[in-house]
Amino acid sequence: MNTRLQNKINTVCWQGDSNGHLEILDQTKLPTQISHVVCKDVSAVVESIQSLRVRGAPAIGIAGAYGMVLAVKEAVQLEESSERKLASIKQLAENLATSRPTAVNLRWAIQRIERLIMNAGTNPDFSELSKVVLEEAKRIQEEDQRLCEKIGEYGASILPDGDLLTHCNTGALATGGIGTALGVIITAWEQGRRFHVFADETRPLLQGARLTAWELTQQNIPVTVLADAAAAHLLKTGQIGCCIVGADRIAANGDTANKIGTYGLALLAKVHNVPFFVAAPSTTFDLAIQTGDEIPIEEREESEILQPFGFQSAPAVARGFNPAFDVTPSHLLTAIITERGIIKNVNAETVAAVISN
Amino acid sequence: MNTRLQNKINTVCWQGDSNGHLEILDQTKLPTQISHVVCKDVSAVVESIQSLRVRGAPAIGIAGAYGMVLAVKEAVQLEESSERKLASIKQLAENLATSRPTAVNLRWAIQRIERLIMNAGTNPDFSELSKVVLEEAKRIQEEDQRLCEKIGEYGASILPDGDLLTHCNTGALATGGIGTALGVIITAWEQGRRFHVFADETRPLLQGARLTAWELTQQNIPVTVLADAAAAHLLKTGQIGCCIVGADRIAANGDTANKIGTYGLALLAKVHNVPFFVAAPSTTFDLAIQTGDEIPIEEREESEILQPFGFQSAPAVARGFNPAFDVTPSHLLTAIITERGIIKNVNAETVAAVISN
Repeated sequence: MNTRLQNKINTVCWQGDSNGHLEILDQTKLPTQISHVVCKDVSAVVESIQSLRVRGAPAIGIAGAYGMVLAVKEAVQLEESSERKLASIKQLAENLATSRPTAVNLRWAIQRIERLIMNAGTNPDFSELSKVVLEEAKRIQEEDQRLCEKIGEYGASILPDGDLLTHCNTGALATGGIGTALGVIITAWEQGRRFHVFADETRPLLQGARLTAWELTQQNIPVTVLADAAAAHLLKTGQIGCCIVGADRIAANGDTANKIGTYGLALLAKVHNVPFFVAAPSTTFDLAIQTGDEIPIEEREESEILQPFGFQSAPAVARGFNPAFDVTPSHLLTAIITERGIIKNVNAETVAAVISN
Repeated sequence: MNTRLQNKINTVCWQGDSNGHLEILDQTKLPTQISHVVCKDVSAVVESIQSLRVRGAPAIGIAGAYGMVLAVKEAVQLEESSERKLASIKQLAENLATSRPTAVNLRWAIQRIERLIMNAGTNPDFSELSKVVLEEAKRIQEEDQRLCEKIGEYGASILPDGDLLTHCNTGALATGGIGTALGVIITAWEQGRRFHVFADETRPLLQGARLTAWELTQQNIPVTVLADAAAAHLLKTGQIGCCIVGADRIAANGDTANKIGTYGLALLAKVHNVPFFVAAPSTTFDLAIQTGDEIPIEEREESEILQPFGFQSAPAVARGFNPAFDVTPSHLLTAIITERGIIKNVNAETVAAVISN
């Protein structure tokens, strides 16, 4: 069922051979419209990432990897030396890698492709190279699908009874497979567990209402959307067994950057003695940084706050504060669920034990 | 300046003598449009309260009081016995009092008018009675204006340094004067204090973005709007000196019902060692109830969550959870600021010492 949803919606999908193009489901149009953007060059991929047509750390990693096929294709078309072509690819890779600053999977995927290109030497067969890069991008996508399955199985094995509360979107729309946190939820449901999913609407861009609720209803899993500010009341008065979210970057000590609102939700869960889980592939870890303090936090346009979806909510002279992410310190996490296993008592040692191998 | 704003916008304003009508600023149209609703009978007032054209506990109390003038006027027009006329007034009073269940000021104001009507005996001069009721309603509005001034002065005297974070709207739009929490902010500003105000946008109905930001920009006080879910990140990374909010009903022990999101914000403030103040007139206290557990929480239409401002945010089959209020336990409050003084170490004894006299 999960694979069918991913196949049906084609979050990120390469069309044709290495001379083909990338199709990206335009998530800004959901839930009312399913349409795809055709990307024939790197700048189109960058635009899709920056405009959040594709979002979710694993999914933008995959989009970035396919973007590298387009980078090679663009370089091939240059009537220049191999050196210049390789320099052009390097510049396009940098454009892709910096299109969003917080998610680490994007840079991870692009660096993986760049290593491949470097291995081809200083005077490669660019036509052959584009085929190799396309194969690697497809491999990254297929690997992510398998990572999601593993995360789903590990997560379902420790999911406590009760209803579930999630934030933002972490499903087929955010990954190459069934998702991370949402993958855990879907796996548990398919195993016969029954619960109600509460989805924070996740202002400013409403990924919870628009995307998570949409994915869950596609799977016939009951879902109720709430304003982010109602989470504390729900935790106090409802039957929430746990909160489960994804991650955009995780530091070596387990501090986790994720969609704005995650940190507050983790604090509220702690106060109400509700377990709080992060589900993410090992590629989301950035062991080069020690703590969450070092994670750059993207600030986005204030119009996302002041003119939500075309509605002028605030007077023209008011300002908007719009951090896209926040950092949840590891001591607030009950566990991090990865494809390599479950990290409990999250700290630098327990993270290293699972991720560094 | 404050009085001028209240006079300029006419949140709730009676026009003419006791045969006149009530004009209510339609707050659902702000900040882009200033228009007034004309209420010539009780059902129009009830509709305005239920549709949140007028909102804010003190303001709906005032609207309810003026609604009682219309209740008497409607009864006068009945060709019935005095007994029937009084029964009709009683029914209309109940319609007004129950138009919103959480705010206590509404029932308080209506009961105050009803006592006056009872005092006029079983066969009153209804024409005279409507004049008396109008005078009483005007008195309630003027009293509220003075309460706001006192709350503003008390509050400004204890406001710590630093920027301010507020939730929902508690200003001239919510009261008969400069406001409660916003009145404190405005008073401190007029006394020469300088700070930046951060306003939670306050989903679902965005009173923070639409109303608080609008009022503050009218007063040239710098204001920045944020998504409710960004408050934790702001408390961690910003220079917030305190949070200050209003109240819809306060139990005898100080537990406070206020706009959904207040409880969570109070918890987050506590974790970050940021003082958390409630500003409310003594009429907001309901000493008949011992704790916040007894306060009824209004649940509103799920369309406020699922179709915000005409935008279809969630798929049609998703449900919405939409409590309008939550309850903040008194131990999370640094102080409650009332027109009778400041209640610190909030509990049943300290509340009684200030409010029961």
